[in-house]
Amino acid sequence: MPVLTTDPGPAPAAAEPPDIPDAGERHRLTAVTGLAALSLDAMASVAYGPEAIVLVLAAAGAHGLGFTMPVTLAIAALLAVLVASYRQVIAAFPDGGGSYAVAKTHLGARTSLVAAASLVLDYVLNVAVAVTAGVAALTSAFPSLYDDRLWLCLAVLALITGVNLRGIVESAKAFIVPTVVFVGSIFVLIAVGLFRDGPVSTVTAGGHASVLSDNATTVGALLLLKAFASGCAALTGVEAIANAVPSFRVPRAKRAQRAEVALGAVLGLMLIGLSVLIGRFHLQPVDGVTVLAQLADASLGHNWAFYVIQFATMVLLALSANTSFGGLPVLLKLLARDNYAPHVFALKADRQVHRHGVLALAAVSALLLVFSGGDTNTLVPLFAIGVFVGFTIAQVGMVRHWLLERGRGWRGKALLNGFGALLTGVATVVVTLEKFTEGAWLIVIALPLLVVAFETVHRAYVRIGERLGLGRIPETPHRERSLVIVPVSSLSRLTSEALTAASSLGDEVRAVTVCHPDPEDRAALHALERSWAEWDPGVTLVRLTSERRSLGRPLAAYVREVAAAEPGTRVTVLIPETEPERFWQRLLQNQRGGVVAYAVRRETDAVICRLRFRLP
Amino acid sequence: MPVLTTDPGPAPAAAEPPDIPDAGERHRLTAVTGLAALSLDAMASVAYGPEAIVLVLAAAGAHGLGFTMPVTLAIAALLAVLVASYRQVIAAFPDGGGSYAVAKTHLGARTSLVAAASLVLDYVLNVAVAVTAGVAALTSAFPSLYDDRLWLCLAVLALITGVNLRGIVESAKAFIVPTVVFVGSIFVLIAVGLFRDGPVSTVTAGGHASVLSDNATTVGALLLLKAFASGCAALTGVEAIANAVPSFRVPRAKRAQRAEVALGAVLGLMLIGLSVLIGRFHLQPVDGVTVLAQLADASLGHNWAFYVIQFATMVLLALSANTSFGGLPVLLKLLARDNYAPHVFALKADRQVHRHGVLALAAVSALLLVFSGGDTNTLVPLFAIGVFVGFTIAQVGMVRHWLLERGRGWRGKALLNGFGALLTGVATVVVTLEKFTEGAWLIVIALPLLVVAFETVHRAYVRIGERLGLGRIPETPHRERSLVIVPVSSLSRLTSEALTAASSLGDEVRAVTVCHPDPEDRAALHALERSWAEWDPGVTLVRLTSERRSLGRPLAAYVREVAAAEPGTRVTVLIPETEPERFWQRLLQNQRGGVVAYAVRRETDAVICRLRFRLP
Repeated sequence: MPVLTTDPGPAPAAAEPPDIPDAGERHRLTAVTGLAALSLDAMASVAYGPEAIVLVLAAAGAHGLGFTMPVTLAIAALLAVLVASYRQVIAAFPDGGGSYAVAKTHLGARTSLVAAASLVLDYVLNVAVAVTAGVAALTSAFPSLYDDRLWLCLAVLALITGVNLRGIVESAKAFIVPTVVFVGSIFVLIAVGLFRDGPVSTVTAGGHASVLSDNATTVGALLLLKAFASGCAALTGVEAIANAVPSFRVPRAKRAQRAEVALGAVLGLMLIGLSVLIGRFHLQPVDGVTVLAQLADASLGHNWAFYVIQFATMVLLALSANTSFGGLPVLLKLLARDNYAPHVFALKADRQVHRHGVLALAAVSALLLVFSGGDTNTLVPLFAIGVFVGFTIAQVGMVRHWLLERGRGWRGKALLNGFGALLTGVATVVVTLEKFTEGAWLIVIALPLLVVAFETVHRAYVRIGERLGLGRIPETPHRERSLVIVPVSSLSRLTSEALTAASSLGDEVRAVTVCHPDPEDRAALHALERSWAEWDPGVTLVRLTSERRSLGRPLAAYVREVAAAEPGTRVTVLIPETEPERFWQRLLQNQRGGVVAYAVRRETDAVICRLRFRLP
Repeated sequence: MPVLTTDPGPAPAAAEPPDIPDAGERHRLTAVTGLAALSLDAMASVAYGPEAIVLVLAAAGAHGLGFTMPVTLAIAALLAVLVASYRQVIAAFPDGGGSYAVAKTHLGARTSLVAAASLVLDYVLNVAVAVTAGVAALTSAFPSLYDDRLWLCLAVLALITGVNLRGIVESAKAFIVPTVVFVGSIFVLIAVGLFRDGPVSTVTAGGHASVLSDNATTVGALLLLKAFASGCAALTGVEAIANAVPSFRVPRAKRAQRAEVALGAVLGLMLIGLSVLIGRFHLQPVDGVTVLAQLADASLGHNWAFYVIQFATMVLLALSANTSFGGLPVLLKLLARDNYAPHVFALKADRQVHRHGVLALAAVSALLLVFSGGDTNTLVPLFAIGVFVGFTIAQVGMVRHWLLERGRGWRGKALLNGFGALLTGVATVVVTLEKFTEGAWLIVIALPLLVVAFETVHRAYVRIGERLGLGRIPETPHRERSLVIVPVSSLSRLTSEALTAASSLGDEVRAVTVCHPDPEDRAALHALERSWAEWDPGVTLVRLTSERRSLGRPLAAYVREVAAAEPGTRVTVLIPETEPERFWQRLLQNQRGGVVAYAVRRETDAVICRLRFRLP
């Protein structure tokens, strides 16, 4: 068989498919631009990570707060382990995909689905957490807005959703400036704070109720573990670079690894720096003002610099929320290709699908916002669970990787990853148990449900594929006798056009009209039959009578009858409709076409043809 | 040409259309059942009519309230004129249709559209007025519910909407019992009240703020005219019998006339009786308690009888609101037949359309409820305007009728109708001016807009009809060469089935696949081309390449190209899709079919065939 090549578009098509020159290489990321473009989420998480630690330790009073530094150091150590681990993930999985890819290779399909489900939850929770944290930065600067924080959250979400519905041009460069401003101001905050002996201002915290516990409990291992687990929320986003290796310039893996290490270094320094200041300024968590806002106040004073930090934080968090709208579709596409999610997610061309996805993500995030009342600290533990499930799976997978590979120094590497897996695994369990009644049950229910949904979809696709004979050569098509049925209600150019089309498509054509037993309908039928006889188009006019006021069902019944009476005949129903000139004139159409098409599709196997007739 | 008759349904079809025995005659209405079935709206209006008078007169203090009786008598006189007029309408227009039919015959198309528009507004406002008045009856009995009246209104509306969405069996008999109970209890109330010298109870009015004006103005002609105009709200519904003459048993006109006169007598007696009691008990309007509730209290005492009246009032008003859901579709059908409303309203079979109509009516009514805050007295004047426009048009039309006919006593009849037209016309103008800023502007805007909409629809249908050559014998259909294009993305039984169908429909068949220049797509294309060559189905596989991530547009461009290159060829695009076994599996479809169909429909004139393939 000849294979024709036709190029309908204005752009020249590549002549030979396999070797296309990659024109996009210079648009790809270097280590520096990659760090800026992909570290957004991780950097933004210092806005709520340290706060999560402080809030837990506050249960043990001022004494408890003294443990902020050790806990932060433990988290920084975990960060180092994670960065080292993801460096290896990058090398082992240069096609990206992160924990889903690692699990698929080393831990089997089901574990990879758990990783995928946790990623889906992360994307959703990231929106909610980033939005609430961003609004918290805003209300820390303008306390009068505090009571309206839920409405502010929903407004910010609506804004992000609107932008994404319109479709944004995704550009790594657009993210560089806010990330640099934010990271830069945090480092300035830390540096200035290190030269002060005490807070230069406590304006923001004044007048707010302290959440410091009066009857300070002793600082037990469980409390520290809990503080550690909560604080690990600061590590969210560390996996982003490993997920996006293909976006880097060659040598992709090397550049990605460099970006990953830089990310770890910057994030670790920020976390440790902030925790030093927390200790130095004897900071106590208060309601309605973020820890970061208090630190900015204490270090830089309640002046323009304070507002710059709050504003930069808010912008970065809003952008961080925005990344979910870009990331979730990519993950769903991967799942769709593996037949775990509806294939429509892999259909890149469909704008409508994208819109549905954006709206669905916005709706679920809005629910989470309402559920949490716009409070970051309710959402952070839920967020952490999903992230940690992913971390744990990725590291367990890496342990298997080293066990299988047994390269140079594999014992040390496996030990490192195993230690990381243990830490993140324990953290997952602790956070889930501690926060179970406060919302973690949501994750405990949603995660397995998602996995079951993926597997159900997969089974259905496998069954459909088998029944369709996918991958096998099907039987050769053959020609059948063709009968075309045309529903008719009056005589016009449209009828003539429909019969012309039907005659071209069918060996036999029948026009069919449905009549109800009321005088008006009967008069119309007689008029039609008279004009039909006068016209004499060479096509039989079949009259169907129906007692019930129905159009589609008698027609469908007739089609079934004909199909049963003449096996081997391909029955087609051709529905003619006028194409309105203007949009509003769609309202003028009588919808008979839709009614007939619906009934025929539901009740018969006939092919449905719709002829749109443009008015001359 | 032979004309076949096929009967697909289980019910036997009538053999010869024109002379069907009218089996429904015994289900039709007598004067008595007709009165019960069609007087609902009119009877229900005594629940808010007298109150409207009293509220206006209260502006002139106790002295003003003394004019309740004369104003009521004037309204009763108008009622007599209207009933006499509608008796003549029934005789002159035995096919029903009311003011729309009268105006169409005697006053031209545009005036009939004004009448139709006023009827549409009436149907909508009737829902809102009846619901608020019904809830007012309820809150008069249970004052603690008064603050939640708007929510109660919306709940009642939701209930009525729900019932109508499910579809109710309309039965005249169902309406008889509540109407009889209501009218009976009003007469008992009046009769008992006439034997009392003063109120037996004033419990309901106690504790409510009187709306009686302190600085009583003098009772001027304008105030009386305004009270008259407001009170005329009690006359709404008088036209219902004239609209529904065909529903009566033969002799239809006679029975309908009898019912109309009886309606006038009952309604007039109730109005006069209630106004006598208002004077006797020196009733003063108060906030939150209806006049009818106060009268029941004063006449029967605050006991079970009081609650029976309130409950009967509420049920009757809810049923009255319900009649709009039955009446508006009938009017829209009449308009659709005359090409003034979208033809979809004349398509009786479509349940979906009915649902859209019910929801639209409910939505507009809900807006009116919110707009009025659930207050009957805000809505009644708006309601009255629409009703009076209809009354005025009908009577002006009858004047023309007498002038043309000049039968026995035509001068007297014309004078009577002319006087009625003058009264209702003046009332229309007075209510509109008085209430302009309080909502009447809505009607002043909506009425002409509706007329313009009707006329726009009509013009569009006339133009479409001309272009379609409706009513002319069209040219004879002819056979053309047929080319069927089948979009293909993989090889399966579905592909084989699609090519079989296409071969049956077309003289030539081409399979077309769209390829994007990324490695994955290209690999898939190569695999497809290899299997295609192996399969060798006798159909050419055309490869379209597209730089942009689009499926539908390159295909549509190819179809346009082919159609331009081969004039005289009928191009058909056949889109194969699998029919999912279960409902949820629709989610698994990749929507390629929809995307392709949309683009081809938008950009080409090709016939679109959709083949639904049921999995074996």
